[in-house]
Amino acid sequence: MNETPPSALAPGGLPGFELALGRRDLDAAVALFGPECYWRDLVAFTWNICTQESPAAVRAMLEARLADVAPSNWRLDGEASTTDGVTEAWFTFETRVARGKGLLRLKEGKAGTLLTTMVELKGFEEKTGERRIAGAEHGVQKHRKSWAELRAQERATLGHTVQPDVVVIGGGQGGIALGARLRRLGVPTLVVEKNARPGDSWRKRYKSLCLHDPVWYDHLPYLPFPDDWPVFSPKDKIGDWLEAYVEIMEINYWGSTLAKNCRWDEAAQRWDVTVERDGKTVVLRPKELVIALGVSGYANVPKIPGAEAFLGDQHHSSRHPGPDACKGKKVVVLGSNNSAHDICAALWENDVDVTMVQRSSTHIAPSKALMELALGGLYSEQAVKSGIDHHKADLIFASVPYKIMHTFHIPVYEEMKRREADLYGRLEGAGFLLDFGADGSGLFMKYLRRGSGYYIDVGASELVANGSIKLKSGVNIERINPRSVTLTDGTELPADVLVYATGYGSMNRWLADLISPEVADRLGKVWGLGSDTPKDPGPWEGELRNMWKPTRVPHLWVQGGNLHQSRHYSQFLSLQLKARLEGLPTPVYGQAEVHHTA
Amino acid sequence: MNETPPSALAPGGLPGFELALGRRDLDAAVALFGPECYWRDLVAFTWNICTQESPAAVRAMLEARLADVAPSNWRLDGEASTTDGVTEAWFTFETRVARGKGLLRLKEGKAGTLLTTMVELKGFEEKTGERRIAGAEHGVQKHRKSWAELRAQERATLGHTVQPDVVVIGGGQGGIALGARLRRLGVPTLVVEKNARPGDSWRKRYKSLCLHDPVWYDHLPYLPFPDDWPVFSPKDKIGDWLEAYVEIMEINYWGSTLAKNCRWDEAAQRWDVTVERDGKTVVLRPKELVIALGVSGYANVPKIPGAEAFLGDQHHSSRHPGPDACKGKKVVVLGSNNSAHDICAALWENDVDVTMVQRSSTHIAPSKALMELALGGLYSEQAVKSGIDHHKADLIFASVPYKIMHTFHIPVYEEMKRREADLYGRLEGAGFLLDFGADGSGLFMKYLRRGSGYYIDVGASELVANGSIKLKSGVNIERINPRSVTLTDGTELPADVLVYATGYGSMNRWLADLISPEVADRLGKVWGLGSDTPKDPGPWEGELRNMWKPTRVPHLWVQGGNLHQSRHYSQFLSLQLKARLEGLPTPVYGQAEVHHTA
Repeated sequence: MNETPPSALAPGGLPGFELALGRRDLDAAVALFGPECYWRDLVAFTWNICTQESPAAVRAMLEARLADVAPSNWRLDGEASTTDGVTEAWFTFETRVARGKGLLRLKEGKAGTLLTTMVELKGFEEKTGERRIAGAEHGVQKHRKSWAELRAQERATLGHTVQPDVVVIGGGQGGIALGARLRRLGVPTLVVEKNARPGDSWRKRYKSLCLHDPVWYDHLPYLPFPDDWPVFSPKDKIGDWLEAYVEIMEINYWGSTLAKNCRWDEAAQRWDVTVERDGKTVVLRPKELVIALGVSGYANVPKIPGAEAFLGDQHHSSRHPGPDACKGKKVVVLGSNNSAHDICAALWENDVDVTMVQRSSTHIAPSKALMELALGGLYSEQAVKSGIDHHKADLIFASVPYKIMHTFHIPVYEEMKRREADLYGRLEGAGFLLDFGADGSGLFMKYLRRGSGYYIDVGASELVANGSIKLKSGVNIERINPRSVTLTDGTELPADVLVYATGYGSMNRWLADLISPEVADRLGKVWGLGSDTPKDPGPWEGELRNMWKPTRVPHLWVQGGNLHQSRHYSQFLSLQLKARLEGLPTPVYGQAEVHHTA
Repeated sequence: MNETPPSALAPGGLPGFELALGRRDLDAAVALFGPECYWRDLVAFTWNICTQESPAAVRAMLEARLADVAPSNWRLDGEASTTDGVTEAWFTFETRVARGKGLLRLKEGKAGTLLTTMVELKGFEEKTGERRIAGAEHGVQKHRKSWAELRAQERATLGHTVQPDVVVIGGGQGGIALGARLRRLGVPTLVVEKNARPGDSWRKRYKSLCLHDPVWYDHLPYLPFPDDWPVFSPKDKIGDWLEAYVEIMEINYWGSTLAKNCRWDEAAQRWDVTVERDGKTVVLRPKELVIALGVSGYANVPKIPGAEAFLGDQHHSSRHPGPDACKGKKVVVLGSNNSAHDICAALWENDVDVTMVQRSSTHIAPSKALMELALGGLYSEQAVKSGIDHHKADLIFASVPYKIMHTFHIPVYEEMKRREADLYGRLEGAGFLLDFGADGSGLFMKYLRRGSGYYIDVGASELVANGSIKLKSGVNIERINPRSVTLTDGTELPADVLVYATGYGSMNRWLADLISPEVADRLGKVWGLGSDTPKDPGPWEGELRNMWKPTRVPHLWVQGGNLHQSRHYSQFLSLQLKARLEGLPTPVYGQAEVHHTA
């Protein structure tokens, strides 16, 4: 697979980058890039998460940042390989303050995509491998405290007599992953969570829920799942894992703690974070505040006339108790995405009469095809065997610029349409409204753009296709009656239970309630790329809005996403926080404008 | 490092073994071995753990076992390497019922040491990697139960309406490691432990205790410690890890459960194991019973005249509360091994007046030197970097025959004597009685032979040498007075607290109490090699007595040892149990005679 190395590349190094950047020679540096080029930087060059999408943008970024970053020591990490005319090279590099890792793709000797990521701050390396602590301090020492005593002391004082530097609101996978990273960096951090135990946010979901992403994609930082972990983890098992993880990682975690109010104290340069813990009010005073409540916000429950007079049980999918409470009843589920399908299937499995009301088209991605066609190359047993563990996969994944990502996905879904033609045909025959995203780019782009609009099919689509789950599509509920609902096409469906599988609102409402509407607006919309597709208005942003990077509200950060994102991007958020807390200069390049308030 | 491959070896395979054993040609097979040779087998050939120590012994074993084992498919695993005239080759092989892995060392083309180990039983492979379960069963299924429901059901029924196949008495590291292995093999198992929580047997030890073995040596099966784990884990941290591990591995574990009585029911071919759980009596009916109570037995407390009239506090080291309870008091510690040193050092650190009474000579191995000279090649960050992870290290370690193991250790301790000459000289100057084992082979041989007689120095020896810990050596306590002890040399030491760091008795007394004195005698002495050195009487056994292998009491097994042994040998014990429970023939070759009853 190896051809003659391109000019930017030589055995052992990247002389082009070393020389051009070492000499601060902008012309030479820009000349390393092709006319269509993307440089995605995760914190190393820009103290931001951003992508330069043209030679001119690369030049502008270097003009602003090169002298300060002072990159050096570009070394190949393994051998470069060439496939179909594209040469791929892993490398390491250094900046003035950090060590980094990157991935370069060259076409005809010119950089097409360049990924640069920060791995560690010099002088603040994690204490791993040869740097690990002794545990038993050899030698003797008067009045030393044991590990258990020190842990107990930390638990007793942090948040009371000792203030954390960082408070993370939300103790799901996002808060926990970040908590683990910050712990390793020695940043005093408190994670607060309204549920009692870590993992409860999974445990409390509907009974049949399993992760829709496979195990290779779901590892948390530092402690991979054992090799017999199920491909799709049942919700309670992942809940128990999160709970064990918090203990093992020594994360300071307050369960049963509700964040009530956050206010920036300009004079003290600290937040006042008022929380209620087991009924008592505590004010925390961190320097940095991270919101990890999930990138969605409050549950969406549409206002439908007559709802207040309904005699049965009505609830949002997030509060759905599972099928046992529905036996012998007639259930109507409003919505047709993941939760709606999972809930309908579990009801059918328990002999409950269930009707799905589909308001608009939905993308159906059969799990097996999705695994094989979309994820398998990076996150699968085969990938691991071929040397792509999740660390490597995360970087390959991160190296694909958002701007052109859809072009890689469209062929995947073309193939999926062919492979699953039978299922898709029968779904349409049953009246189900299908789509594959605005440009046919399918599931993952929908996830990035709007975070909704799909079902990863693990079996329910067959039940919809064969009529086991009854379907009313292209309609909405117009009116709720005491024992039925009337649809917009005039149909009346008897209903003892009404489930609103209608998704979630914007995170900004949480921010408005927690801090203030002004701050929520100043921060602006969270998530989405500005793709100008449904629910993701333009202009183009190039990166997910406000995620894991500096926001327009100083000292306020957003952490979250699926398990993969929580794992990978917590690395970069933790390094940004650590740098600020250690007083390193962190000039942010290319900070995004706020175009939308929610 | 590669020279011409020896005749038994060729690129890709071991044609000598393949041919000779394939043709059942004993002469050709024995001719592959040199005149001094050792074949250590872990279950694969012998359904036993045993070492053949001569060509004649190899022949006898093959005569008895070859037709049944039907070994085949000997393949090199990686390339063979030659250093100092010894060629080392990793290989895999199959038997009629299992797959195995081995390590061969050749000298002048002849096998000097051969290790064969069973890895998995055909048809009963662990569900890992590509075999892992889906978790979310795709498709739909009427009335399916969730993972949480199935776990709850298992917890509610196992030991009550559903009987476990295996009961493990003792839920320390040994019982837990075996529980994890059996869980993966699908063997219904219950681990019972008198303490409330997994890890309590560590938590309840003296406050300053940290593991004396380093992290690379201490991993449990399947879930290695994270890479920031301390080199020497503090006792409470390892306790918490064990507790999390039990949850993660889904081990059925009954805490607060005291085993009262075990009786083999010949008619039913099951044990009656009577336990008291939270005050209620439960009778368990397993087919196989494993004792994992620690290879030592009850605490040894010598009977010393006057003890009953002592006005202070006296306790065995296993009940020592740590220094806080001793402040302002005069403490006498009887004993000079690990616990005695750790306890004395922690007392000194807390300004307690403490005297160690050394009855006989002790081996002192400074931890740093021990790590570098003895363990570092196999269990260290450097070993991991050079490709020797703990899986590989365990097999290399296991490949050294016990018969000649001391010859590898003697030079290590010769070097330690040179390197630590200053410390040893000052210890002797302070009156401390030193030894290096009967033949100068040091710590690990003492551990294998007698399980006692040493201190891994993490700092206390300096305190002994400089007099901070007061020392009386070559004496015993002759008489205990109300507020002092009188030593055999006539000295009277004032004492408010008396700690018996006097070790543990034989496990057989536990067996005698749990089952019967007759069964304890039939099983015979546990641990030790028959080296004819102090506390390890001959004749030579070749393997640790009764550990992890069939005993003379059918359906009764002993599991235990340090974390390394609990990890590695649980593999072989679990496979032996699984084979029996699946009804595979398991003819045991070379079962040891019982030479000593305790």
